[in-house]
Amino acid sequence: MSKFRDGRTVNDKGHLEIAGLDTIDLANKYGTPLFIYNISTVRENIKMFKDALKNYPKNSEVSYASKAFSSVAMYQIIEQEDISIDVVSGGELYIAKQAGFPGERINFHGNNKSRSELIDALDYGIGHFIVDNFHELDMLKALTAERKQTAKVLIRVTPGVDADTHKYILTGNVDSKFGFDLESGQAEDAVRMAQEAEYLQLDGLHMHIGSQIFESDSYILAMTQILKYVKEWHTQFGFNLSIFNIGGGFGIQHIPNGEVTSSKNQLEEIGQSLIALFEEYDLPYPELWIEPGRSIVGEAGTTIYDVGSQKVLPDVRHYISVDGGMADNIRPAFYDAEYDAKLANRMNDKPVNTVSIAGKACESGDMLIWDLPLPEIKADDKLAVFNTGDYSFAMASNYNRLTKPAVVFVEDGKDFLAIRRETPEDFMRFENNLPEDFR
Amino acid sequence: MSKFRDGRTVNDKGHLEIAGLDTIDLANKYGTPLFIYNISTVRENIKMFKDALKNYPKNSEVSYASKAFSSVAMYQIIEQEDISIDVVSGGELYIAKQAGFPGERINFHGNNKSRSELIDALDYGIGHFIVDNFHELDMLKALTAERKQTAKVLIRVTPGVDADTHKYILTGNVDSKFGFDLESGQAEDAVRMAQEAEYLQLDGLHMHIGSQIFESDSYILAMTQILKYVKEWHTQFGFNLSIFNIGGGFGIQHIPNGEVTSSKNQLEEIGQSLIALFEEYDLPYPELWIEPGRSIVGEAGTTIYDVGSQKVLPDVRHYISVDGGMADNIRPAFYDAEYDAKLANRMNDKPVNTVSIAGKACESGDMLIWDLPLPEIKADDKLAVFNTGDYSFAMASNYNRLTKPAVVFVEDGKDFLAIRRETPEDFMRFENNLPEDFR
Repeated sequence: MSKFRDGRTVNDKGHLEIAGLDTIDLANKYGTPLFIYNISTVRENIKMFKDALKNYPKNSEVSYASKAFSSVAMYQIIEQEDISIDVVSGGELYIAKQAGFPGERINFHGNNKSRSELIDALDYGIGHFIVDNFHELDMLKALTAERKQTAKVLIRVTPGVDADTHKYILTGNVDSKFGFDLESGQAEDAVRMAQEAEYLQLDGLHMHIGSQIFESDSYILAMTQILKYVKEWHTQFGFNLSIFNIGGGFGIQHIPNGEVTSSKNQLEEIGQSLIALFEEYDLPYPELWIEPGRSIVGEAGTTIYDVGSQKVLPDVRHYISVDGGMADNIRPAFYDAEYDAKLANRMNDKPVNTVSIAGKACESGDMLIWDLPLPEIKADDKLAVFNTGDYSFAMASNYNRLTKPAVVFVEDGKDFLAIRRETPEDFMRFENNLPEDFR
Repeated sequence: MSKFRDGRTVNDKGHLEIAGLDTIDLANKYGTPLFIYNISTVRENIKMFKDALKNYPKNSEVSYASKAFSSVAMYQIIEQEDISIDVVSGGELYIAKQAGFPGERINFHGNNKSRSELIDALDYGIGHFIVDNFHELDMLKALTAERKQTAKVLIRVTPGVDADTHKYILTGNVDSKFGFDLESGQAEDAVRMAQEAEYLQLDGLHMHIGSQIFESDSYILAMTQILKYVKEWHTQFGFNLSIFNIGGGFGIQHIPNGEVTSSKNQLEEIGQSLIALFEEYDLPYPELWIEPGRSIVGEAGTTIYDVGSQKVLPDVRHYISVDGGMADNIRPAFYDAEYDAKLANRMNDKPVNTVSIAGKACESGDMLIWDLPLPEIKADDKLAVFNTGDYSFAMASNYNRLTKPAVVFVEDGKDFLAIRRETPEDFMRFENNLPEDFR
């Protein structure tokens, strides 16, 4: 059974409610597929991360990794909660600017920032560039010198730690497209270059060891690896680690299956270990920065689908098709991600069948959930898929020319259309008719 | 080395030309990433399919499976070539309508067509509904009766054949979300229902056994399976198979690696076997319909990327980052698809390094090509990735808020912007500001 987060209840009609709102009413009002974000959950998660860092003896910063889900209104929520954001492209930066998000609280990530993206970011006066490679370092050095404008940077290093996660979302191992390698001396070269550059203010280092990590060991191992070099650089050429950004990757459960170390405990352990490590190496404590994305928005999201056709293969499988799928949530097909779901319009009905939820796309791989216990189902029932707030809408495509769903924010009985539904008419903004001279 | 299709040449500057146009000029004119479709290749592929069916003793029809790549201008090209199209959603139907594509040459596919999609299709008077399940059959029966409008249908059956292909794109095996099962009697029930419905004109059957199939055996096996039932139904209740739609799945090579059975030979073999089968079962020859998608547009597409950063890990890997990746072509990350690429601006330079091409998305899994021999590379070189016409743009997302590339059609020295580049400003059409009452 689902472990319901606060804010999810069942009303007298047997309908799923989120933040006091009937999800069937929301589906009728906004259509399906529909993403519903419980903003209280977003705020609670942010508070949890801030609390977890409270006892750390120096400053700390939570920076929302907005690639998990970005929108103007989400950036405005993040601003209300007084934390920072990570952006990874000019597109995310653009939306953050439109949201009026303060430049100094924006950190810019990515393995291939373009010159024009760097200029946009300098123009907006962002907080930190997380410098990934020499090409970027060269461009940034040249641009800041040209503009006589100081840019604050962190150098991304790869500690060479293999965190326990899915192969596609590993990033901390040495064979990664991201960051500077420690062992070969490239990280040291980058640190020296940044330190010597007149208009770069080198504030520290960044690491990111992967995604969906539920323990703290791999973080601590990675920090230990890096600290050896920090000590050496400190001694050799006076490098000071003012900020240690240990990245994101804090795991969440998309399905309810057992005990999980909470991110709060994870972070408290990490903080303790960091203190111990800096004492061991006799270095001043740095600021501790973290970059949760999934763990802020994942559990806040629910997708409501309309049920359509069914196919019952005796003794083989019972397929239920919904009106969305891999176009709005590619994670099941792409990462073998698992989700839990219930009938939003008949929450109290007992499961009687084991069914598999098929997406609408004309592709066999478009399956959302395998082997889910559900009540007897009929067309136009509404299926609620839980914990879809991370990397679902963010990765949505128009495969099969399906249109992107609407996104609604709910909180304390209020609902608000954060992102309106796409329509086929929207496609026409990009399309041109074949000219006469093409045969 | 690449086996270049007609229309790809190298000019005096050492630049890749397609259809007589310098791809570097096109990249400068339209920006990168840029999809370039050689329309001559599209036309040649269509002609090849038509030719392959020429000797078949009854009518035949080629229906372009437009989920591989759809656009207004592509539908207009298809219309010029006088073949049909498959659509799989109201979105594709909408674009086909905007292109002025004739209704009677549109076939409608999908495992979960909605009532409103069926109504749109009836309004436009499409050619055939490929009926997938009982829910659709019921809706279509009711709608056509209500409207007193006859709809032509094919019943999709699953022959239970496992074609040799990637697990995500298998569709012919019995445990599939698509179509009616033969063994359990569901296909027979559907055929009887369709035959008895006053306003449904049952013209035949449809099968689809998978994707990227390079031989004809699995098609023939599937046809044989189905023919046993057709004979039985013919005897029992006078069912006539007027049209046999054997689907698509004709393989293409995305990388040049050895001998491949051409689709032409494949189809000629299939046609011969079909004749033999119908003679064996003493049934009149049906019309033979096929649904190529990938094999019409795949080889026609080339993507031009701009090269950005590099990361050289001594003795491990040499990463080259480009300005696109999984957002515009998810196939390498999703299906482990392999591609070939060359430096479009230095086609004559000899390969000296083995490099791996990283995408721009902030995700380790965003790798386009592993272990590609290339010349020494510098920033702003242009990389041409070949055979990207199928399921690349069609599956494009805005992950990381990257914008969708432009699509240019080229033919006989002419270029035309078929789909304009998306910009961050386009995102704002969907975005709303957080209202006052959200805290």
